[in-house]
Amino acid sequence: MPRPTRHVFVCSQQRPPGHPRGSCAAKGASPLLQAFWAELQKRNAYDQVAITYSGCLGPCDGGANVLVYPEGVLYQRVTPDDVVEVFEKHLLGGEPVTRLVAAPTEW
Amino acid sequence: MPRPTRHVFVCSQQRPPGHPRGSCAAKGASPLLQAFWAELQKRNAYDQVAITYSGCLGPCDGGANVLVYPEGVLYQRVTPDDVVEVFEKHLLGGEPVTRLVAAPTEW
Repeated sequence: MPRPTRHVFVCSQQRPPGHPRGSCAAKGASPLLQAFWAELQKRNAYDQVAITYSGCLGPCDGGANVLVYPEGVLYQRVTPDDVVEVFEKHLLGGEPVTRLVAAPTEW
Repeated sequence: MPRPTRHVFVCSQQRPPGHPRGSCAAKGASPLLQAFWAELQKRNAYDQVAITYSGCLGPCDGGANVLVYPEGVLYQRVTPDDVVEVFEKHLLGGEPVTRLVAAPTEW
């Protein structure tokens, strides 16, 4: 794939039911990843944006976690309903969606 | 985890044996990831460097692939023997290991 302008990592970490840390998988990472991929396809933005799933990004309590590079912006509690806004405003527009940005204590 | 200065994504994509694209898993991604994590632990560099596994990064032929942000440097054909050099020179020293950098046609 071409080198993207922005690269989105959607934490897809799984853990067993009842695990004390929980997981982004248990917080909806799979439908979230699908929503990002669907939006990428719909906009045919493959030259600008890459969407990749990843292992644990750290602050599991606030999942589902989504990390955007090169800025290193971590979004928390992201749901499929947020995907269009993140895509338009940040991934294509360059301006982070502040209401979803992790607190400085988290990242 | 604290926001790292450099974030390493080790492609750990698996595919069935005989799949035409191959995979980074088949090219040694798992021992490579373990080597990065071991080096991170040895250096106790958790405040500076994060190591995360990821899904497919694209150019599977050249795996195992390792992507470093915020620079967006893709390394290819990485083996556990390369880990100390990548750690010292790039992750802590800020200078990419040019002999491993993907060709511009790949990334």
